[in-house]
Amino acid sequence: MLKPIYVLNGPNLNRLGLREPDIYGRTTLAEIETLCRQAAGARPVEFRQTNSETQMIDWIHEATDQDRAGGIVINPAAYSFTSIAILDALKMFAGPIIELHISNIHRREAIYQHSLMSRAATAVIAGLGARGYVAAVQAMIEIIERDPTGAAALQGEALR
Amino acid sequence: MLKPIYVLNGPNLNRLGLREPDIYGRTTLAEIETLCRQAAGARPVEFRQTNSETQMIDWIHEATDQDRAGGIVINPAAYSFTSIAILDALKMFAGPIIELHISNIHRREAIYQHSLMSRAATAVIAGLGARGYVAAVQAMIEIIERDPTGAAALQGEALR
Amino acid sequence: MLKPIYVLNGPNLNRLGLREPDIYGRTTLAEIETLCRQAAGARPVEFRQTNSETQMIDWIHEATDQDRAGGIVINPAAYSFTSIAILDALKMFAGPIIELHISNIHRREAIYQHSLMSRAATAVIAGLGARGYVAAVQAMIEIIERDPTGAAALQGEALR
Amino acid sequence: MLKPIYVLNGPNLNRLGLREPDIYGRTTLAEIETLCRQAAGARPVEFRQTNSETQMIDWIHEATDQDRAGGIVINPAAYSFTSIAILDALKMFAGPIIELHISNIHRREAIYQHSLMSRAATAVIAGLGARGYVAAVQAMIEIIERDPTGAAALQGEALR
Amino acid sequence: MLKPIYVLNGPNLNRLGLREPDIYGRTTLAEIETLCRQAAGARPVEFRQTNSETQMIDWIHEATDQDRAGGIVINPAAYSFTSIAILDALKMFAGPIIELHISNIHRREAIYQHSLMSRAATAVIAGLGARGYVAAVQAMIEIIERDPTGAAALQGEALR
Amino acid sequence: MLKPIYVLNGPNLNRLGLREPDIYGRTTLAEIETLCRQAAGARPVEFRQTNSETQMIDWIHEATDQDRAGGIVINPAAYSFTSIAILDALKMFAGPIIELHISNIHRREAIYQHSLMSRAATAVIAGLGARGYVAAVQAMIEIIERDPTGAAALQGEALR
Amino acid sequence: MLKPIYVLNGPNLNRLGLREPDIYGRTTLAEIETLCRQAAGARPVEFRQTNSETQMIDWIHEATDQDRAGGIVINPAAYSFTSIAILDALKMFAGPIIELHISNIHRREAIYQHSLMSRAATAVIAGLGARGYVAAVQAMIEIIERDPTGAAALQGEALR
Amino acid sequence: MLKPIYVLNGPNLNRLGLREPDIYGRTTLAEIETLCRQAAGARPVEFRQTNSETQMIDWIHEATDQDRAGGIVINPAAYSFTSIAILDALKMFAGPIIELHISNIHRREAIYQHSLMSRAATAVIAGLGARGYVAAVQAMIEIIERDPTGAAALQGEALR
Amino acid sequence: MLKPIYVLNGPNLNRLGLREPDIYGRTTLAEIETLCRQAAGARPVEFRQTNSETQMIDWIHEATDQDRAGGIVINPAAYSFTSIAILDALKMFAGPIIELHISNIHRREAIYQHSLMSRAATAVIAGLGARGYVAAVQAMIEIIERDPTGAAALQGEALR
Amino acid sequence: MLKPIYVLNGPNLNRLGLREPDIYGRTTLAEIETLCRQAAGARPVEFRQTNSETQMIDWIHEATDQDRAGGIVINPAAYSFTSIAILDALKMFAGPIIELHISNIHRREAIYQHSLMSRAATAVIAGLGARGYVAAVQAMIEIIERDPTGAAALQGEALR
Amino acid sequence: MLKPIYVLNGPNLNRLGLREPDIYGRTTLAEIETLCRQAAGARPVEFRQTNSETQMIDWIHEATDQDRAGGIVINPAAYSFTSIAILDALKMFAGPIIELHISNIHRREAIYQHSLMSRAATAVIAGLGARGYVAAVQAMIEIIERDPTGAAALQGEALR
Amino acid sequence: MLKPIYVLNGPNLNRLGLREPDIYGRTTLAEIETLCRQAAGARPVEFRQTNSETQMIDWIHEATDQDRAGGIVINPAAYSFTSIAILDALKMFAGPIIELHISNIHRREAIYQHSLMSRAATAVIAGLGARGYVAAVQAMIEIIERDPTGAAALQGEALR
Repeated sequence: MLKPIYVLNGPNLNRLGLREPDIYGRTTLAEIETLCRQAAGARPVEFRQTNSETQMIDWIHEATDQDRAGGIVINPAAYSFTSIAILDALKMFAGPIIELHISNIHRREAIYQHSLMSRAATAVIAGLGARGYVAAVQAMIEIIERDPTGAAALQGEALR
Repeated sequence: MLKPIYVLNGPNLNRLGLREPDIYGRTTLAEIETLCRQAAGARPVEFRQTNSETQMIDWIHEATDQDRAGGIVINPAAYSFTSIAILDALKMFAGPIIELHISNIHRREAIYQHSLMSRAATAVIAGLGARGYVAAVQAMIEIIERDPTGAAALQGEALR
Repeated sequence: MLKPIYVLNGPNLNRLGLREPDIYGRTTLAEIETLCRQAAGARPVEFRQTNSETQMIDWIHEATDQDRAGGIVINPAAYSFTSIAILDALKMFAGPIIELHISNIHRREAIYQHSLMSRAATAVIAGLGARGYVAAVQAMIEIIERDPTGAAALQGEALR
Repeated sequence: MLKPIYVLNGPNLNRLGLREPDIYGRTTLAEIETLCRQAAGARPVEFRQTNSETQMIDWIHEATDQDRAGGIVINPAAYSFTSIAILDALKMFAGPIIELHISNIHRREAIYQHSLMSRAATAVIAGLGARGYVAAVQAMIEIIERDPTGAAALQGEALR
Repeated sequence: MLKPIYVLNGPNLNRLGLREPDIYGRTTLAEIETLCRQAAGARPVEFRQTNSETQMIDWIHEATDQDRAGGIVINPAAYSFTSIAILDALKMFAGPIIELHISNIHRREAIYQHSLMSRAATAVIAGLGARGYVAAVQAMIEIIERDPTGAAALQGEALR
Repeated sequence: MLKPIYVLNGPNLNRLGLREPDIYGRTTLAEIETLCRQAAGARPVEFRQTNSETQMIDWIHEATDQDRAGGIVINPAAYSFTSIAILDALKMFAGPIIELHISNIHRREAIYQHSLMSRAATAVIAGLGARGYVAAVQAMIEIIERDPTGAAALQGEALR
Repeated sequence: MLKPIYVLNGPNLNRLGLREPDIYGRTTLAEIETLCRQAAGARPVEFRQTNSETQMIDWIHEATDQDRAGGIVINPAAYSFTSIAILDALKMFAGPIIELHISNIHRREAIYQHSLMSRAATAVIAGLGARGYVAAVQAMIEIIERDPTGAAALQGEALR
Repeated sequence: MLKPIYVLNGPNLNRLGLREPDIYGRTTLAEIETLCRQAAGARPVEFRQTNSETQMIDWIHEATDQDRAGGIVINPAAYSFTSIAILDALKMFAGPIIELHISNIHRREAIYQHSLMSRAATAVIAGLGARGYVAAVQAMIEIIERDPTGAAALQGEALR
Repeated sequence: MLKPIYVLNGPNLNRLGLREPDIYGRTTLAEIETLCRQAAGARPVEFRQTNSETQMIDWIHEATDQDRAGGIVINPAAYSFTSIAILDALKMFAGPIIELHISNIHRREAIYQHSLMSRAATAVIAGLGARGYVAAVQAMIEIIERDPTGAAALQGEALR
Repeated sequence: MLKPIYVLNGPNLNRLGLREPDIYGRTTLAEIETLCRQAAGARPVEFRQTNSETQMIDWIHEATDQDRAGGIVINPAAYSFTSIAILDALKMFAGPIIELHISNIHRREAIYQHSLMSRAATAVIAGLGARGYVAAVQAMIEIIERDPTGAAALQGEALR
Repeated sequence: MLKPIYVLNGPNLNRLGLREPDIYGRTTLAEIETLCRQAAGARPVEFRQTNSETQMIDWIHEATDQDRAGGIVINPAAYSFTSIAILDALKMFAGPIIELHISNIHRREAIYQHSLMSRAATAVIAGLGARGYVAAVQAMIEIIERDPTGAAALQGEALR
Repeated sequence: MLKPIYVLNGPNLNRLGLREPDIYGRTTLAEIETLCRQAAGARPVEFRQTNSETQMIDWIHEATDQDRAGGIVINPAAYSFTSIAILDALKMFAGPIIELHISNIHRREAIYQHSLMSRAATAVIAGLGARGYVAAVQAMIEIIERDPTGAAALQGEALR
């Protein structure tokens, strides 16, 4: 049976697209979940959101336990910048991790520019909006299924 | 006629996959070019590499001139961290820009962690290896073709 | 019907005035709640305390949802200095926010001097003790009720 | 006889509300003086403004001399960020000091964020506009008149 | 009756020794609990673990309430570096506090080197592995039981 | 024959407990030596003090030569913060090293907070007073005698 | 009638060219005033010098009042680096401001390199000696008289 | 014969005024060249632009060789902030150097505020738009022709 | 005729010894003036105090003009740390300058530790109380009268 | 019997005045010793020099032991900037300490500007050359003999 | 056949010794080339200079391709401090690299002190003038020819 | 008679090559001494090692005294990074100084990267292993014997 991909969303993302679309966008998290499931095809997706650092840690432990998850796609939102506890949990996960941000965090104010999570992530995608989730899930499936192109990423590090 | 996507590669990337595959990866830049063209489908791709900061600026001017390019995918390599001149050229380009890094630069030594280019980029993809080019070209096409999901990226910025 | 003012209190404030009055003061949080209700008069007050960052975020979402709250008075205590997640929740609240500190945090050790919350707050009151809650609630009511004097605050920003 | 409250205003505040109300607010310093006197009731108010660091120091010495003032409310404006001489004068004043800023200085550019004066102030109020003067005078009177609630501020410092 | 020692463990420590012993060690937290109880002898031990910052604060309040605990041994794990809220809770505890780290945190990457908790701790033990818990419990009992040698620690501070 | 434990003490520690016990403590270094020998039991202890950086280096070389010492317990006092030469000597010692401080250095002024020695130490104990020597010697013996619990320290590093 | 240009000079500039020409130059401030008047032609010049921060603020207020001045040329000398009060006064002036320095301050010691005034200035001229005053007055007249070339400065900002 | 003035322009300045005048200004580099030649009168002008750091260095060498140029006016654009190689070339030029920026760089983002070139420049003009070129050429001619006023710049350095 | 020594005192020093001797000392500035005159013997002393930065600059200009003063002893108080304008005035004085502080400023909070004035001072005396004025005047007289021992100070700089 | 003053000199000071008087001054350390003894009058002087940090610590211990010295005048030379061990020894000395530097260290390169010793010194004298020793010894005698003027130094700290 | 040594020289070095020998030295780059060939004996030398970062990268690629060069001696001049692109190219070269600077860069201004290239270099020689090239070529030959003494360099790293 | 070269070695270098050749290299300091003597030929070599900062200072004084040494080759080891006292001693030596490091210190951890000694050294050689001593002695002899090539080093400083 195919191992699921965990798609984990951090604080305040439950507000996505709920009201004032000019400011917060029109796509709701429920719609993003649908996009992820479509992108994943036959492979199951554990799609979750929490405002709790503790809950996020527990979900990562669940994904880690007995290598239950094939990979983790995580949008840690504000915890990207403050939670060493989530970083430590991610470090214990042996599979691939893709860190996702809806906006290009590197263009924002200083406190939002440097994600602690990147130290544990295989890859980072930022600024593609809801579309980034689709790209992340597709890339994760390729990595899990040992795509030879994906393997090059591990080898070519010296060239950036 | 469809506007081309410019895929621009910076210094040392001409060495990708040439020798010592354990260290520099097995995928050559020529193979990456093929992957990009496949991903772009009918849309033309201007795929180029240079070790010259000046050449890179000129290509971006070419892409900017009369809005010739639909979008720019750029792997600035080492110039990511040192070239304000390329950053300034990118700022003059009115279309979408996706910055690409083969490895996850945020895990590397301090001098490689903070790309100046991100200040001008719509989105950033790092750590997906050669696969990242495919993801970038696919995302670029969706953004160019006014995919509603892509539009949400511009709106949801406050939520990250 | 008058919209309520949310008065939200962060970690360790449940210990206020419980014992050792020489060190922790004599006024309990229950007494402060009474002072707030008196100051608010006919306007309802949602007075709450939590040691949980998650709970604080959820309460701010509740206040934000359908513009339920007229304004938020928040004493974020230690989370002032560490929680970008609460800051992000506050940024989504469209009404006025008054940040409150019992002591003058700017006189304390470096780690207590710079509140992240101030980036989202309309106003900050620090060092007035329990009296500060009364001042905050009174000022909040004036701002909500469109006191012309309060409006000047938005205009005179360049003069400090 | 009741000791007066000194309300001291620093550089450029003489321009408040004079012209261009959209930018500098509609409330003039003369109107703020009236608000302060109303808030002070029977207690006299020494309300002054100066563009001179030296004059400000001399007024604080005057307030200090023979404990002439019951308390000082000070809006040091730009001198907040540069004048150690005024800070030193304030440190010699034995009574309560409330530092006031019309706007929320903590949201402004870096050079305006950290007031030197806060090291000598009992309390700080920022961002309430002209309304902040009223809140400051009211709080000052309560502190002077030994309100038990105000006393708690000195005791609860460890809880913030 | 002897007051208990609280032995409090922070996030991710529930994963200790569960799998992959080469990486995470062979000793489980349950075994460490047994070691602590043996070291404590007749004195009761409240041995707990949580991934929740809030839960940790509540337990410290519990230990503080009516001086219920004789002392606190705490391994705050990742919260050592980020939680001012736990630090504030510890500051309210009047008894001795021993901070414990399984590894020598001072040899790790910069983000793990400086524990905020040390500002409230009586003593710090780092790098002794599971053995450190035994040393901490033994030292705590001596401090509680007013060992004259332990008292010297408070006096000899100037000599380090 | 059992290899000795070297217990090395740095500058100014010869003044411990000599006079003014309120300030410098009552325990002399001679008494601490006795405590160490008791804690070491049958295993010999080389207990020494010096105000000389050079002498300290020479003693570490002596301990290193032909693996003469089973382990080193070192209280480097002020040299903790300034001597890279002692750090380099410690790095050449192949056995376990426990760094000891009588007070909790992490609570002191900035210049005393970050020990260079910690980069070479297996473990660090700070703040237990003279009692810390006993804990250090006991822990050192367990590490030398290959206590399985001690071994876990090397494995569990990722969990802190 | 033509509005005057204010040419304001800060502390110590009254000493220009008075004695020791090898060190302080041969041109006196009176001679510079003559140069300015010649350069201004028919347009009146208010040429002043003060060692007083307060006086400087008052002159800028005078220039601001009823848009009395057409533009301000200011050599703030030492106050460039320390006076936020003068900066705030300049920010209230709606017309063009040219900041002038006799020497190239960017080549001097660190404390002289970064002028606070530049945040409010339209343009900065440094290092042209007394000649810089002429260049500043000429440029100011062109800007005031809506020279189309001068207007380009406002538009071409992105190109530097 | 009169020695020429070199007017050297750095990267991206070839785009000046080409399109979108609201953003990039209406004045083209060709028009600026005309302005420079008019300002220079009989004295020849070598007016050039390049996107190449190497080309810029070579031109400065050309100007330096046999003291071919009377002076250099340089708008290094983005290379102002990154090219120590151009700085070193400028240091070898014995004549006067005027550094020019179209906008007031000191008001821009941090990466654009501090020009390395200023360490080698005689004078700096920033923020006068295309008009700045005229001012620079005029000032350069005066300096070259030994205007006594210009000489004072070298003497009055201590007064700024 | 003997040139006078200028003894210049900065802000707040007019409050010395006026009241609360436990805090502000018992010696008034008038008494210090007497001490200075006694120490100076036949040589006249210009002893002054001001709270005004401008006045201080003007007095230094007066001392500088026609080399009127033999030397300057200055206690700049708070202006030590903020006034580049006074520093610039001091730099123009050709004679010896002794900077004086009543307390040892290097032991105080960070904002009081580094005097800008020291860049222009021949010598610095701090922490000797009112006695420091006597030492400063005596040393100044010796320097002025070309004491050979004093001359060695200029020569032995390399040895500190 | 009068307690002696210890005058302790640090590394390289044995080279004072030996050769090349233009560079190292003409006054030898032996001549300085004579000056000190003359200044001390009847009070004995222990005048010593060492290049050894250890020797310096031992001499301070000697001075401390049984309060043998009336006061310490110390020119720690290079150890001023690097030796926390000497600082710790000085902290244990209960009497007055005057730190002396031949040159004005605050004008030198950054590494020479901030003496660690100043944290333990009563007073600091810098820049008076050999004359500084005389001033230091004279001041020390006055402090020891309880000169009321000297006592004011301890009281007036708040005024600087 | 013996593999050549590449001796690569960066920007501005083509100006060495051309004119003004007092400032730029008397030795030309052509003479240095002769010295290098003499020092290399039978082994061929590729001696080149460029002002182009791109050309330098291409030459390093040439040296790297098929291990064409036995070793690289590089004087990167100004690119030492700014070119991550050249650093990345050097990292791909498998053989020994000696970085050379004519002057002792560590004594120069801050911007010249820290070479990025040193991260990829086997060894660094600075300050020996043209003589340094001879030393570098001689050392390179010994390293290439597997001199046992040279091998010790790789082993003794821990001792520096 | 030929003046000797002093080859001075700092702390821990007496351990070079003694044991564990894989880690500490195979070349002993005695063998390095032999290499130095061979390289020096007829010129005598004072080859010494010490773990004592004081001894190192004394040897430099010895070399300085009466210009006894022709030049100093110094491997200060750990003292490179901490000893201003040795730096000061080196500054008094009038002849050439070559600083030597066995490994390339610029590639090591931050605390080992910046040698204080470089401020006094004529040249620096790092990373050539034991071979570096030979290169240093050879270069020193050429400098002493006034090799014209060596002289160029002093002249070409501006080109690096």
